[in-house]
Amino acid sequence: MNKDEALAEVKKLLPEKRYIHTLGVVESAMELAARYGGDSKKAELAAILHDITKYFPVDQLREYIETHDEIPSDMLSYHPSLWHSPVGAVYVKEQFGIQDQEVLDAITYHTTGRTGMSLLEKIVFLADYIEPGRSFPGVDEVRQMAKESLDLAVAKALANTTQFLVENYKQVYPDTISAYNDLIKDNGKKLADWKKERGNGFENE
Amino acid sequence: MNKDEALAEVKKLLPEKRYIHTLGVVESAMELAARYGGDSKKAELAAILHDITKYFPVDQLREYIETHDEIPSDMLSYHPSLWHSPVGAVYVKEQFGIQDQEVLDAITYHTTGRTGMSLLEKIVFLADYIEPGRSFPGVDEVRQMAKESLDLAVAKALANTTQFLVENYKQVYPDTISAYNDLIKDNGKKLADWKKERGNGFENE
Repeated sequence: MNKDEALAEVKKLLPEKRYIHTLGVVESAMELAARYGGDSKKAELAAILHDITKYFPVDQLREYIETHDEIPSDMLSYHPSLWHSPVGAVYVKEQFGIQDQEVLDAITYHTTGRTGMSLLEKIVFLADYIEPGRSFPGVDEVRQMAKESLDLAVAKALANTTQFLVENYKQVYPDTISAYNDLIKDNGKKLADWKKERGNGFENE
Repeated sequence: MNKDEALAEVKKLLPEKRYIHTLGVVESAMELAARYGGDSKKAELAAILHDITKYFPVDQLREYIETHDEIPSDMLSYHPSLWHSPVGAVYVKEQFGIQDQEVLDAITYHTTGRTGMSLLEKIVFLADYIEPGRSFPGVDEVRQMAKESLDLAVAKALANTTQFLVENYKQVYPDTISAYNDLIKDNGKKLADWKKERGNGFENE
Protein backbone atom coordinates (compact mmCIF):
# COMPACT_ATOMS: atom_id res chain seq x y z
CA MET A 1 0.00 0.00 0.00
CA ASN A 2 1.58 3.28 -1.06
CA LYS A 3 1.24 6.69 0.57
CA ASP A 4 -1.46 8.03 -1.76
CA GLU A 5 -3.61 4.91 -1.49
CA ALA A 6 -3.36 5.00 2.29
CA LEU A 7 -4.24 8.71 2.44
CA ALA A 8 -7.23 8.14 0.16
CA GLU A 9 -8.57 5.34 2.40
CA VAL A 10 -8.11 7.43 5.53
CA LYS A 11 -9.75 10.45 3.95
CA LYS A 12 -12.88 8.36 3.28
CA LEU A 13 -13.21 7.42 6.95
CA LEU A 14 -12.25 10.58 8.83
CA PRO A 15 -13.88 14.00 9.19
CA GLU A 16 -11.74 16.83 7.83
CA LYS A 17 -10.44 17.96 11.22
CA ARG A 18 -9.16 14.48 12.05
CA TYR A 19 -7.68 14.12 8.56
CA ILE A 20 -5.73 17.34 9.10
CA HIS A 21 -4.56 15.95 12.47
CA THR A 22 -3.39 12.83 10.61
CA LEU A 23 -1.35 14.93 8.17
CA GLY A 24 0.24 16.64 11.17
CA VAL A 25 1.13 13.28 12.71
CA VAL A 26 2.72 12.21 9.40
CA GLU A 27 4.81 15.39 9.35
CA SER A 28 5.96 14.96 12.96
CA ALA A 29 6.59 11.24 12.54
CA MET A 30 8.80 11.90 9.50
CA GLU A 31 10.79 14.49 11.43
CA LEU A 32 11.24 12.14 14.38
CA ALA A 33 12.21 9.24 12.10
CA ALA A 34 14.85 11.42 10.43
CA ARG A 35 16.19 12.66 13.77
CA TYR A 36 16.29 9.30 15.54
CA GLY A 37 17.10 6.91 12.68
CA GLY A 38 13.64 5.39 12.30
CA ASP A 39 12.36 3.79 9.09
CA SER A 40 10.72 6.72 7.33
CA LYS A 41 8.51 4.59 5.05
CA LYS A 42 7.13 2.61 7.98
CA ALA A 43 6.73 5.74 10.10
CA GLU A 44 4.83 7.41 7.27
CA LEU A 45 2.49 4.47 6.70
CA ALA A 46 1.78 3.91 10.40
CA ALA A 47 1.18 7.65 10.92
CA ILE A 48 -1.23 7.86 7.98
CA LEU A 49 -3.23 4.86 9.20
CA HIS A 50 -3.03 5.33 12.98
CA ASP A 51 -6.52 6.83 13.46
CA ILE A 52 -8.30 5.10 10.56
CA THR A 53 -11.01 3.54 12.77
CA LYS A 54 -11.27 6.53 15.14
CA TYR A 55 -14.78 7.37 13.91
CA PHE A 56 -16.15 3.84 13.81
CA PRO A 57 -19.28 3.57 15.96
CA VAL A 58 -18.52 2.30 19.46
CA ASP A 59 -20.58 -0.84 18.84
CA GLN A 60 -18.49 -1.69 15.79
CA LEU A 61 -15.24 -1.16 17.73
CA ARG A 62 -16.58 -3.37 20.52
CA GLU A 63 -17.46 -6.09 18.02
CA TYR A 64 -13.92 -6.03 16.61
CA ILE A 65 -12.50 -6.50 20.12
CA GLU A 66 -14.97 -9.28 20.94
CA THR A 67 -14.21 -11.18 17.75
CA HIS A 68 -10.41 -10.77 17.57
CA ASP A 69 -8.29 -12.69 20.05
CA GLU A 70 -5.25 -10.53 19.28
CA ILE A 71 -6.96 -7.60 21.04
CA PRO A 72 -6.98 -8.03 24.83
CA SER A 73 -10.60 -8.17 25.96
CA ASP A 74 -9.82 -6.25 29.18
CA MET A 75 -9.85 -3.16 26.93
CA LEU A 76 -13.64 -3.38 27.06
CA SER A 77 -13.50 -2.39 30.75
CA TYR A 78 -11.65 0.81 29.84
CA HIS A 79 -12.65 3.96 27.99
CA PRO A 80 -13.86 3.44 24.40
CA SER A 81 -11.46 6.17 23.25
CA LEU A 82 -8.69 3.54 23.54
CA TRP A 83 -10.39 0.99 21.30
CA HIS A 84 -9.66 2.49 17.86
CA SER A 85 -5.91 1.85 18.21
CA PRO A 86 -5.81 -1.97 18.32
CA VAL A 87 -8.90 -2.11 16.09
CA GLY A 88 -7.13 0.11 13.55
CA ALA A 89 -4.27 -2.39 13.32
CA VAL A 90 -6.69 -5.28 12.77
CA TYR A 91 -8.60 -3.24 10.19
CA VAL A 92 -5.59 -2.35 8.03
CA LYS A 93 -4.36 -5.93 8.21
CA GLU A 94 -7.69 -7.35 7.09
CA GLN A 95 -8.72 -4.67 4.62
CA PHE A 96 -5.40 -3.72 3.03
CA GLY A 97 -3.32 -6.83 3.69
CA ILE A 98 -0.71 -4.94 5.72
CA GLN A 99 1.44 -7.62 7.36
CA ASP A 100 4.36 -5.57 8.70
CA GLN A 101 4.16 -6.25 12.43
CA GLU A 102 6.18 -3.14 13.28
CA VAL A 103 3.67 -0.93 11.49
CA LEU A 104 0.74 -2.82 13.04
CA ASP A 105 2.24 -2.49 16.55
CA ALA A 106 2.87 1.23 16.07
CA ILE A 107 -0.84 1.63 15.29
CA THR A 108 -1.94 -0.69 18.12
CA TYR A 109 0.04 1.14 20.83
CA HIS A 110 -0.21 4.73 19.62
CA THR A 111 -2.67 5.70 22.37
CA THR A 112 -1.69 3.59 25.38
CA GLY A 113 2.00 2.83 24.84
CA ARG A 114 3.35 -0.36 26.41
CA THR A 115 6.45 -1.64 28.13
CA GLY A 116 9.37 -2.19 25.74
CA MET A 117 8.13 0.14 23.00
CA SER A 118 10.00 -0.13 19.69
CA LEU A 119 11.57 2.91 18.03
CA LEU A 120 8.68 3.04 15.54
CA GLU A 121 6.08 2.77 18.31
CA LYS A 122 7.71 5.67 20.16
CA ILE A 123 7.84 7.78 16.99
CA VAL A 124 4.14 7.36 16.18
CA PHE A 125 3.06 7.72 19.83
CA LEU A 126 5.04 10.94 20.21
CA ALA A 127 4.09 12.34 16.79
CA ASP A 128 0.44 11.89 17.75
CA TYR A 129 1.10 13.89 20.92
CA ILE A 130 3.14 16.78 19.49
CA GLU A 131 1.89 17.22 15.90
CA PRO A 132 1.55 20.92 14.97
CA GLY A 133 -2.23 20.98 15.48
CA ARG A 134 -2.02 20.05 19.16
CA SER A 135 -2.34 22.91 21.65
CA PHE A 136 -2.99 21.46 25.13
CA PRO A 137 -1.01 22.55 28.24
CA GLY A 138 2.47 21.05 28.29
CA VAL A 139 2.74 20.23 24.59
CA ASP A 140 5.43 22.85 23.87
CA GLU A 141 7.62 21.41 26.59
CA VAL A 142 7.33 17.92 25.08
CA ARG A 143 8.06 19.37 21.61
CA GLN A 144 11.27 20.85 23.00
CA MET A 145 12.21 17.55 24.64
CA ALA A 146 11.51 15.73 21.37
CA LYS A 147 14.36 17.69 19.81
CA GLU A 148 16.78 16.45 22.47
CA SER A 149 15.78 12.91 23.43
CA LEU A 150 13.05 10.63 22.11
CA ASP A 151 12.78 8.61 25.33
CA LEU A 152 12.69 11.73 27.50
CA ALA A 153 9.83 13.15 25.42
CA VAL A 154 7.86 9.89 25.37
CA ALA A 155 8.34 9.49 29.14
CA LYS A 156 7.09 13.06 29.68
CA ALA A 157 4.10 12.54 27.39
CA LEU A 158 3.18 9.38 29.32
CA ALA A 159 3.58 11.22 32.63
CA ASN A 160 1.41 14.12 31.41
CA THR A 161 -1.27 11.73 30.16
CA THR A 162 -1.34 9.83 33.45
CA GLN A 163 -1.48 13.11 35.41
CA PHE A 164 -4.36 14.34 33.29
CA LEU A 165 -6.34 11.11 33.71
CA VAL A 166 -5.82 10.88 37.47
CA GLU A 167 -6.53 14.60 38.02
CA ASN A 168 -9.84 14.00 36.31
CA TYR A 169 -10.48 10.72 38.11
CA LYS A 170 -10.40 8.65 34.93
CA GLN A 171 -9.10 5.09 34.61
CA VAL A 172 -5.53 4.57 33.40
CA TYR A 173 -5.04 1.58 31.10
CA PRO A 174 -2.37 -0.73 32.60
CA ASP A 175 -0.19 -0.60 29.44
CA THR A 176 0.15 3.16 29.94
CA ILE A 177 1.54 2.77 33.44
CA SER A 178 3.79 -0.08 32.23
CA ALA A 179 5.13 2.17 29.48
CA TYR A 180 5.59 5.04 31.96
CA ASN A 181 7.34 2.81 34.53
CA ASP A 182 9.55 1.34 31.84
CA LEU A 183 10.76 4.71 30.53
CA ILE A 184 10.85 6.56 33.85
CA LYS A 185 13.53 4.18 35.16
CA ASP A 186 16.17 5.81 32.94
CA ASN A 187 14.51 9.19 32.42
CA GLY A 188 13.01 10.10 35.80
CA LYS A 189 16.08 11.90 37.03
CA LYS A 190 16.55 13.67 33.69
CA LEU A 191 12.95 14.87 33.80
CA ALA A 192 13.35 16.10 37.38
CA ASP A 193 16.52 17.96 36.33
CA TRP A 194 14.73 19.45 33.33
CA LYS A 195 11.91 20.70 35.58
CA LYS A 196 14.42 22.24 37.98
CA GLU A 197 16.45 23.92 35.25
CA ARG A 198 13.92 24.84 32.60
CA GLY A 199 10.48 24.12 34.03
CA ASN A 200 9.52 27.76 34.51
CA GLY A 201 9.81 28.59 30.85
CA PHE A 202 6.73 26.53 30.07
CA GLU A 203 4.54 27.25 33.06
CA ASN A 204 2.54 30.03 31.51
CA GLU A 205 1.95 28.66 28.06
CA MET B 1 -1.22 -12.68 69.86
CA ASN B 2 -2.91 -10.04 71.98
CA LYS B 3 -2.71 -6.26 71.66
CA ASP B 4 -0.05 -5.73 74.34
CA GLU B 5 2.20 -8.48 73.00
CA ALA B 6 1.94 -7.07 69.49
CA LEU B 7 2.69 -3.54 70.68
CA ALA B 8 5.72 -4.76 72.63
CA GLU B 9 7.14 -6.55 69.56
CA VAL B 10 6.59 -3.51 67.35
CA LYS B 11 8.14 -1.18 69.91
CA LYS B 12 11.33 -3.25 69.83
CA LEU B 13 11.69 -2.84 66.07
CA LEU B 14 10.60 0.74 65.40
CA PRO B 15 12.12 4.12 66.28
CA GLU B 16 9.88 6.21 68.54
CA LYS B 17 8.52 8.42 65.74
CA ARG B 18 7.37 5.42 63.73
CA TYR B 19 5.92 3.79 66.85
CA ILE B 20 3.85 6.94 67.46
CA HIS B 21 2.72 6.77 63.82
CA THR B 22 1.68 3.17 64.46
CA LEU B 23 -0.44 4.20 67.46
CA GLY B 24 -2.09 6.81 65.22
CA VAL B 25 -2.87 4.15 62.61
CA VAL B 26 -4.40 1.96 65.31
CA GLU B 27 -6.60 4.83 66.46
CA SER B 28 -7.74 5.66 62.93
CA ALA B 29 -8.25 2.00 61.99
CA MET B 30 -10.47 1.46 65.07
CA GLU B 31 -12.56 4.52 64.16
CA LEU B 32 -12.94 3.34 60.57
CA ALA B 33 -13.79 -0.21 61.67
CA ALA B 34 -16.49 1.14 63.99
CA ARG B 35 -17.88 3.44 61.29
CA TYR B 36 -17.89 0.91 58.45
CA GLY B 37 -18.60 -2.36 60.26
CA GLY B 38 -15.09 -3.81 60.11
CA ASP B 39 -13.75 -6.38 62.58
CA SER B 40 -12.21 -4.20 65.28
CA LYS B 41 -9.91 -6.92 66.67
CA LYS B 42 -8.47 -7.68 63.23
CA ALA B 43 -8.20 -3.99 62.36
CA GLU B 44 -6.34 -3.37 65.62
CA LEU B 45 -3.90 -6.24 65.13
CA ALA B 46 -3.18 -5.42 61.46
CA ALA B 47 -2.71 -1.73 62.30
CA ILE B 48 -0.29 -2.48 65.15
CA LEU B 49 1.80 -4.78 62.97
CA HIS B 50 1.57 -3.03 59.60
CA ASP B 51 5.00 -1.35 59.71
CA ILE B 52 6.84 -3.93 61.81
CA THR B 53 9.60 -4.50 59.22
CA LYS B 54 9.74 -0.86 58.07
CA TYR B 55 13.22 -0.40 59.53
CA PHE B 56 14.72 -3.69 58.41
CA PRO B 57 17.84 -3.06 56.32
CA VAL B 58 17.13 -3.06 52.59
CA ASP B 59 19.29 -6.15 52.09
CA GLN B 60 17.24 -8.09 54.62
CA LEU B 61 13.97 -7.03 52.98
CA ARG B 62 15.38 -8.07 49.60
CA GLU B 63 16.36 -11.47 50.98
CA TYR B 64 12.84 -12.03 52.30
CA ILE B 65 11.41 -11.28 48.84
CA GLU B 66 13.96 -13.50 47.11
CA THR B 67 13.29 -16.43 49.43
CA HIS B 68 9.47 -16.25 49.73
CA ASP B 69 7.41 -17.24 46.72
CA GLU B 70 4.30 -15.58 48.17
CA ILE B 71 5.91 -12.16 47.55
CA PRO B 72 5.92 -11.24 43.85
CA SER B 73 9.54 -10.85 42.77
CA ASP B 74 8.67 -7.96 40.42
CA MET B 75 8.61 -5.84 43.61
CA LEU B 76 12.41 -5.87 43.43
CA SER B 77 12.21 -3.66 40.32
CA TYR B 78 10.25 -1.04 42.28
CA HIS B 79 11.16 1.29 45.12
CA PRO B 80 12.40 -0.41 48.32
CA SER B 81 9.90 1.65 50.34
CA LEU B 82 7.24 -0.79 49.11
CA TRP B 83 9.02 -3.90 50.34
CA HIS B 84 8.26 -3.75 54.07
CA SER B 85 4.54 -4.35 53.50
CA PRO B 86 4.58 -7.90 52.05
CA VAL B 87 7.68 -8.70 54.12
CA GLY B 88 5.84 -7.58 57.26
CA ALA B 89 3.08 -10.10 56.58
CA VAL B 90 5.59 -12.92 56.11
CA TYR B 91 7.44 -11.84 59.25
CA VAL B 92 4.41 -11.88 61.57
CA LYS B 93 3.30 -15.21 60.12
CA GLU B 94 6.70 -16.82 60.70
CA GLN B 95 7.64 -15.15 63.99
CA PHE B 96 4.29 -14.90 65.75
CA GLY B 97 2.32 -17.66 64.04
CA ILE B 98 -0.36 -15.27 62.77
CA GLN B 99 -2.42 -17.27 60.28
CA ASP B 100 -5.42 -15.00 59.73
CA GLN B 101 -5.21 -14.31 55.99
CA GLU B 102 -7.35 -11.16 56.27
CA VAL B 103 -4.91 -9.64 58.74
CA LEU B 104 -1.91 -10.77 56.65
CA ASP B 105 -3.44 -9.28 53.47
CA ALA B 106 -4.20 -5.99 55.21
CA ILE B 107 -0.50 -5.76 56.12
CA THR B 108 0.66 -6.90 52.66
CA TYR B 109 -1.39 -4.31 50.74
CA HIS B 110 -1.28 -1.35 53.14
CA THR B 111 1.14 0.60 50.92
CA THR B 112 0.22 -0.36 47.35
CA GLY B 113 -3.42 -1.38 47.56
CA ARG B 114 -4.67 -3.88 44.97
CA THR B 115 -7.74 -4.57 42.89
CA GLY B 116 -10.63 -6.02 44.91
CA MET B 117 -9.45 -4.76 48.31
CA SER B 118 -11.31 -6.23 51.30
CA LEU B 119 -12.97 -4.03 53.92
CA LEU B 120 -10.07 -4.67 56.31
CA GLU B 121 -7.47 -3.86 53.64
CA LYS B 122 -9.21 -0.56 52.92
CA ILE B 123 -9.40 0.30 56.62
CA VAL B 124 -5.69 -0.26 57.25
CA PHE B 125 -4.63 1.41 53.98
CA LEU B 126 -6.72 4.49 54.73
CA ALA B 127 -5.81 4.63 58.44
CA ASP B 128 -2.14 4.66 57.41
CA TYR B 129 -2.89 7.63 55.12
CA ILE B 130 -5.03 9.75 57.47
CA GLU B 131 -3.77 8.95 61.00
CA PRO B 132 -3.56 12.09 63.16
CA GLY B 133 0.21 12.47 62.75
CA ARG B 134 0.00 12.88 58.96
CA SER B 135 0.23 16.43 57.64
CA PHE B 136 0.90 16.33 53.89
CA PRO B 137 -1.14 18.38 51.37
CA GLY B 138 -4.55 16.86 50.73
CA VAL B 139 -4.78 14.79 53.90
CA ASP B 140 -7.54 16.90 55.49
CA GLU B 141 -9.69 16.43 52.42
CA VAL B 142 -9.27 12.65 52.61
CA ARG B 143 -10.03 12.76 56.36
CA GLN B 144 -13.30 14.52 55.55
CA MET B 145 -14.13 11.97 52.84
CA ALA B 146 -13.36 9.14 55.27
CA LYS B 147 -16.28 10.33 57.41
CA GLU B 148 -18.66 10.03 54.47
CA SER B 149 -17.54 7.09 52.34
CA LEU B 150 -14.74 4.58 52.79
CA ASP B 151 -14.42 3.83 49.07
CA LEU B 152 -14.43 7.52 48.13
CA ALA B 153 -11.62 8.21 50.60
CA VAL B 154 -9.53 5.22 49.50
CA ALA B 155 -10.00 6.15 45.83
CA LYS B 156 -8.89 9.72 46.58
CA ALA B 157 -5.87 8.53 48.58
CA LEU B 158 -4.85 6.28 45.66
CA ALA B 159 -5.34 9.17 43.20
CA ASN B 160 -3.25 11.51 45.39
CA THR B 161 -0.49 8.92 45.73
CA THR B 162 -0.37 8.31 41.98
CA GLN B 163 -0.36 12.09 41.31
CA PHE B 164 2.50 12.57 43.73
CA LEU B 165 4.58 9.78 42.21
CA VAL B 166 4.04 10.86 38.61
CA GLU B 167 4.61 14.54 39.40
CA ASN B 168 7.96 13.50 40.82
CA TYR B 169 8.70 11.07 37.98
CA LYS B 170 8.71 8.02 40.25
CA GLN B 171 7.54 4.55 39.28
CA VAL B 172 3.99 3.50 40.21
CA TYR B 173 3.61 -0.13 41.31
CA PRO B 174 1.02 -1.84 39.08
CA ASP B 175 -1.14 -2.91 42.07
CA THR B 176 -1.62 0.78 42.93
CA ILE B 177 -3.01 1.59 39.50
CA SER B 178 -5.15 -1.58 39.62
CA ALA B 179 -6.55 -0.47 42.97
CA TYR B 180 -7.12 3.05 41.65
CA ASN B 181 -8.80 1.81 38.45
CA ASP B 182 -10.96 -0.60 40.45
CA LEU B 183 -12.29 2.06 42.84
CA ILE B 184 -12.44 4.95 40.38
CA LYS B 185 -15.05 3.11 38.30
CA ASP B 186 -17.73 3.75 40.93
CA ASN B 187 -16.19 6.80 42.62
CA GLY B 188 -14.74 8.88 39.78
CA LYS B 189 -17.89 10.88 39.24
CA LYS B 190 -18.39 11.36 42.98
CA LEU B 191 -14.83 12.65 43.33
CA ALA B 192 -15.31 15.04 40.41
CA ASP B 193 -18.54 16.31 42.02
CA TRP B 194 -16.76 16.71 45.36
CA LYS B 195 -14.02 18.77 43.70
CA LYS B 196 -16.60 20.95 41.99
CA GLU B 197 -18.69 21.51 45.13
CA ARG B 198 -16.16 21.51 47.94
CA GLY B 199 -12.70 21.44 46.38
CA ASN B 200 -11.88 25.06 47.18
CA GLY B 201 -12.16 24.55 50.90
CA PHE B 202 -9.01 22.47 50.93
CA GLU B 203 -6.88 24.24 48.36
CA ASN B 204 -4.93 26.38 50.80
CA GLU B 205 -4.28 23.90 53.56
